[in-house]
Amino acid sequence: MSTYGDKIKLTVFGESHGDGIGCVLDNIPAGICIDMDKVLTQMARRAPGKDKTSTPRLEKDFPIVKSGILDGVTTGAPISCFIENTNTRSGDYSNLLDKPRPGHADYTAYIKYDGKNDIRGGGHFSGRLTAPIVFAGAVARQILEQKGIKIAAHIASIGGVSDERFNPVDIPDELIERLNTETFALIDKDKEAAMRDVIEKARMDLDSVGGVVECAVTGVPVGIGGPLFDGIEGKISQAVFGIPAVKGVEFGSGFACAEARGSENNDSFVFEDGKVKTATNNCGGILGGISDGMPIIFRAAFKPTPSIAKEQKTVNLTTGENTTLSVKGRHDPCIVPRAVSVVEAVAALAVLDMVTL
Amino acid sequence: MSTYGDKIKLTVFGESHGDGIGCVLDNIPAGICIDMDKVLTQMARRAPGKDKTSTPRLEKDFPIVKSGILDGVTTGAPISCFIENTNTRSGDYSNLLDKPRPGHADYTAYIKYDGKNDIRGGGHFSGRLTAPIVFAGAVARQILEQKGIKIAAHIASIGGVSDERFNPVDIPDELIERLNTETFALIDKDKEAAMRDVIEKARMDLDSVGGVVECAVTGVPVGIGGPLFDGIEGKISQAVFGIPAVKGVEFGSGFACAEARGSENNDSFVFEDGKVKTATNNCGGILGGISDGMPIIFRAAFKPTPSIAKEQKTVNLTTGENTTLSVKGRHDPCIVPRAVSVVEAVAALAVLDMVTL
Amino acid sequence: MSTYGDKIKLTVFGESHGDGIGCVLDNIPAGICIDMDKVLTQMARRAPGKDKTSTPRLEKDFPIVKSGILDGVTTGAPISCFIENTNTRSGDYSNLLDKPRPGHADYTAYIKYDGKNDIRGGGHFSGRLTAPIVFAGAVARQILEQKGIKIAAHIASIGGVSDERFNPVDIPDELIERLNTETFALIDKDKEAAMRDVIEKARMDLDSVGGVVECAVTGVPVGIGGPLFDGIEGKISQAVFGIPAVKGVEFGSGFACAEARGSENNDSFVFEDGKVKTATNNCGGILGGISDGMPIIFRAAFKPTPSIAKEQKTVNLTTGENTTLSVKGRHDPCIVPRAVSVVEAVAALAVLDMVTL
Amino acid sequence: MSTYGDKIKLTVFGESHGDGIGCVLDNIPAGICIDMDKVLTQMARRAPGKDKTSTPRLEKDFPIVKSGILDGVTTGAPISCFIENTNTRSGDYSNLLDKPRPGHADYTAYIKYDGKNDIRGGGHFSGRLTAPIVFAGAVARQILEQKGIKIAAHIASIGGVSDERFNPVDIPDELIERLNTETFALIDKDKEAAMRDVIEKARMDLDSVGGVVECAVTGVPVGIGGPLFDGIEGKISQAVFGIPAVKGVEFGSGFACAEARGSENNDSFVFEDGKVKTATNNCGGILGGISDGMPIIFRAAFKPTPSIAKEQKTVNLTTGENTTLSVKGRHDPCIVPRAVSVVEAVAALAVLDMVTL
Repeated sequence: MSTYGDKIKLTVFGESHGDGIGCVLDNIPAGICIDMDKVLTQMARRAPGKDKTSTPRLEKDFPIVKSGILDGVTTGAPISCFIENTNTRSGDYSNLLDKPRPGHADYTAYIKYDGKNDIRGGGHFSGRLTAPIVFAGAVARQILEQKGIKIAAHIASIGGVSDERFNPVDIPDELIERLNTETFALIDKDKEAAMRDVIEKARMDLDSVGGVVECAVTGVPVGIGGPLFDGIEGKISQAVFGIPAVKGVEFGSGFACAEARGSENNDSFVFEDGKVKTATNNCGGILGGISDGMPIIFRAAFKPTPSIAKEQKTVNLTTGENTTLSVKGRHDPCIVPRAVSVVEAVAALAVLDMVTL
Repeated sequence: MSTYGDKIKLTVFGESHGDGIGCVLDNIPAGICIDMDKVLTQMARRAPGKDKTSTPRLEKDFPIVKSGILDGVTTGAPISCFIENTNTRSGDYSNLLDKPRPGHADYTAYIKYDGKNDIRGGGHFSGRLTAPIVFAGAVARQILEQKGIKIAAHIASIGGVSDERFNPVDIPDELIERLNTETFALIDKDKEAAMRDVIEKARMDLDSVGGVVECAVTGVPVGIGGPLFDGIEGKISQAVFGIPAVKGVEFGSGFACAEARGSENNDSFVFEDGKVKTATNNCGGILGGISDGMPIIFRAAFKPTPSIAKEQKTVNLTTGENTTLSVKGRHDPCIVPRAVSVVEAVAALAVLDMVTL
Repeated sequence: MSTYGDKIKLTVFGESHGDGIGCVLDNIPAGICIDMDKVLTQMARRAPGKDKTSTPRLEKDFPIVKSGILDGVTTGAPISCFIENTNTRSGDYSNLLDKPRPGHADYTAYIKYDGKNDIRGGGHFSGRLTAPIVFAGAVARQILEQKGIKIAAHIASIGGVSDERFNPVDIPDELIERLNTETFALIDKDKEAAMRDVIEKARMDLDSVGGVVECAVTGVPVGIGGPLFDGIEGKISQAVFGIPAVKGVEFGSGFACAEARGSENNDSFVFEDGKVKTATNNCGGILGGISDGMPIIFRAAFKPTPSIAKEQKTVNLTTGENTTLSVKGRHDPCIVPRAVSVVEAVAALAVLDMVTL
Repeated sequence: MSTYGDKIKLTVFGESHGDGIGCVLDNIPAGICIDMDKVLTQMARRAPGKDKTSTPRLEKDFPIVKSGILDGVTTGAPISCFIENTNTRSGDYSNLLDKPRPGHADYTAYIKYDGKNDIRGGGHFSGRLTAPIVFAGAVARQILEQKGIKIAAHIASIGGVSDERFNPVDIPDELIERLNTETFALIDKDKEAAMRDVIEKARMDLDSVGGVVECAVTGVPVGIGGPLFDGIEGKISQAVFGIPAVKGVEFGSGFACAEARGSENNDSFVFEDGKVKTATNNCGGILGGISDGMPIIFRAAFKPTPSIAKEQKTVNLTTGENTTLSVKGRHDPCIVPRAVSVVEAVAALAVLDMVTL
């Protein structure tokens, strides 16, 4: 199912080269003011065509709200949003019918859907489907903000070039606000040149490059989440792995904790201004699946864009022979900068689902 | 909810020092022969008290099937299983009521449940709750085996000492069978001494150590899973993060893919014996959230056991003062060896949920 | 949630006087041919404005498929459908803001949504929301037909005038096909005049009238459904009570069984042409929540249209005074004839959910 | 799935003649005091063997709480309960293996489970499975009582002999309290003799008889429930149809509304003591799927006990021949008196699921 959430419910629909794409976001309370400019800001951060790091395909990506919001205020009915597909060049994909692109869902979808899925542009598997997710996330985060919960993500690394990490025990609001508007979101902006260089080199080589996005959620009250399969890690990871190209998710110190000792990795409790805090935050704000009041911190690993112009080996499903393929079309050499707002969006949806009563 | 699954449904209940623990596994088809000896083998792998790496608490951990299996064959009714708690020493936990243990759910559960949760032994948050999960997984894997799907995990690393990794394109049945019966499961058994040494050193230092478990699932047909929030990664990660102490999950090349280029990370398709295969398996057997017929490979990072005898800083929730704590009781200096069968169990449950019609 | 189904998932969105309404139907297999003419036939049966029994509001009710169907064949992606609202006269509703209409959701929605719901035309509570349900049901029944499962409903009674009932052990295909195309569906067409007379009299009295719809599903294989909360009755009733104005649902002999003895009400098993059948069908084709291979039969009671021009007592929520109200606008004196196709639609969705693997 | 609920989750397990039966009730808040005597009172009302109207099978039906309640207070962990089967006489069922009992799930379960289900005593389909449901309902209603929500049911009719109906606009607490403790619950106790007479006559004729249970829920705040598939009617009906033998459910005036005019059936709004009330309650306290603050009223039709000693026609599944059967064993000639507490229990679970945040 292209559906996420228990208490809120997001349903995503559409195919990359069909009429359009969209989503339905259900069980949002009535009476919430939605600032559509803020929604558009988030969608613009994800939208392609901003610079050489992303696909030159231009989409207005304008979300038309069909229901659930009246005069800027939620009505309590499901919020539905539709985004037209206006700039499709399906011809680019004609040679893909026989030759599945390595790293893409072409082959697996061909088998699952018995060859009947819409292959153009990846169909329902296209990264373009993250546009309605960003719409829904932009609505969700406005509700969260009214509860004092804020979300920001940045590019933690691209092709080996790393940004600073969040200070996990202190994430200032000004940093969050700055990151929330950037299209190449970095804590240390001095790293931008080196990162863009890595991307440009990959592009010149007809290749692509992966990266990591780090995300923080502040202001989550203590006691959200639950034990076992109800934990925050499971809830967020299910949302984050819903983003195409994510292959790893870690919380707090993550994989590094596997090499640490308990005395290093445990976060001491301390009273600070009469409140219980932790001196460090290796647990990423989550103990026993439940929020401890510190920032929730996680990182998601994105694989390099699988669409590359470089020649690759593949098979011809019709002739049954091994062959080669060079993926034409307009593709990002690195999707990580645009993915930042998508990670924020799914984090917002996951957290809203958990704090919604 | 302490519940997992859509098509099958696992419900886990119990508290570490109450009457007992157990589970209900629903929607298992009728007529499946369940070999209870195989179930007990898996539970024994998880059970404590085998050697110095684990807690000396001895539990028979004998699963009493209350319903759903008659004369060794499933009846189609929910399978329920109960495991008595026989060896509890609640006195060890009396000083924890005020002082939350760092790295544990004591504080977060205290807030969530308003101080009314059963704190003894971690209550419903205890690692002991993984016993019924292993029971359910052991049932699940027997059903999967009849479909030709096999699962094995091993200790990928402990405290920085690494085992070999699975060869992701070729995992022999003999290796799977060997790993399935071991209590300290390694591909390269020569690494056992060094790993045990790391654990023993931590124990002598009144400390603990973390590690990584790698898991492979072979024989999954092409076309299982789905796009977006229905992908295999999301499904498996939700199950794996349901295991206490897991802080990271990655598939295929995982976080390493973030530093790779597309031309390196894409897995070429090749015809082999008339079948479509991939030459490498950086995607971990999953493309677009859907199985590609190659082994599904993932790794889970476990944090070091938070219960350590070494003195730690914490707070006294009653007096509101900072204080220190040394965790008494019987605890594993490293849970990773015992966690191997738990990872296999949740993988079996996740895969069964996806292949069940 | 405005969502139905476990294995398939229908999400309905929209408000009566907003931009439009629609639905998303998820998890429909790829490769199913959808005859759009048949879909339009079903939608036309529900559409208003056909004669004096229904509201004169004219809506083209044309479903625009945005995704999931390509060249008349399902792609496996969620099927989304949008229906524009073209003929809204919101002015008719201006006096309703203060005075909740008796029998409507005005008051309960006002409290639930804190006065922020779109009140125009009933908003998300409008009977108009059944249009996308009929669309989805029309898709569902085409899939069912390919499995040999057929669905038909008829007006069992209106205002005390009754049609014949289905012969519960023998429902010929010709009857099903005839009923499937009628806009005033009756087994005994001679009853039409008397029923129309009852409706017309109510209309002349500025009043409305209720009725019962009976529905049959043939060709369901033995063994669908399950015990307790998984039974067919629960599954279908949840769908049928999702139709506005339904206040009762009964299966087989229904409420009449409460006055019968076991020896009368039990359906004897008999071998007929080598197959197990029942001599009677008081159980409505369902034993222990599971289909027995006989037609599934149920009836749904519809209350009279609450919108009546006759003066009624109500309250003024602003002034806190008792007052009166005469509902203006365009309303059906009897919704039962149009509801027939809606009942068929939800039955199709419920049965498809149960037979989908 | 033998599971009910969205926000709370009830899982029922067990088979009539296995080790035992039980349930898990998840997501109950911590800190609720549970009066176990009140729980036992409800279970005693359902238990068999009280008099000639019910099966002479004696079961202690004592619920052993395994987890989730500590010192009489909920801990927030799943509440699990186990009830031993102590008085099974499986020999009585030996002749049923070949000959499905009319009106029972024998045949449909045989096909669904491929003959592998536990047929003894109806297995998982036994009415005995309602014992853990009553346990769970008894816990649920104690939580509801703390919110001012009360539930009572009575025998509305047995075999054509009717009790008074609830006054739908005024249900005094004293009536609720009286009904809550009775084993033959009637508003007008003078009807008891005539009802018992009907049952006794059926018993003497080796036959059985059906009936109707009416249930009221008072104190539900305005605004609970939702539109379309989220309505109270759908939620409650799914729970009530989960009780074996229920074949019809109606709310408020129910099927009678089909013969009424809108002006008769609409419930006028009136201000009373500054509160909005309805002068009548034909809608059963539900408008647009949402509670209106008046008592929620519904009725459930129970078919006559299918197990009758009288000879019935059936088939021999082994020989493929028509044959006859007289059902031996210990069976109620009328289950309706015992069903009253089961109806209250499922109503409590449904309402708790809706009011739980």
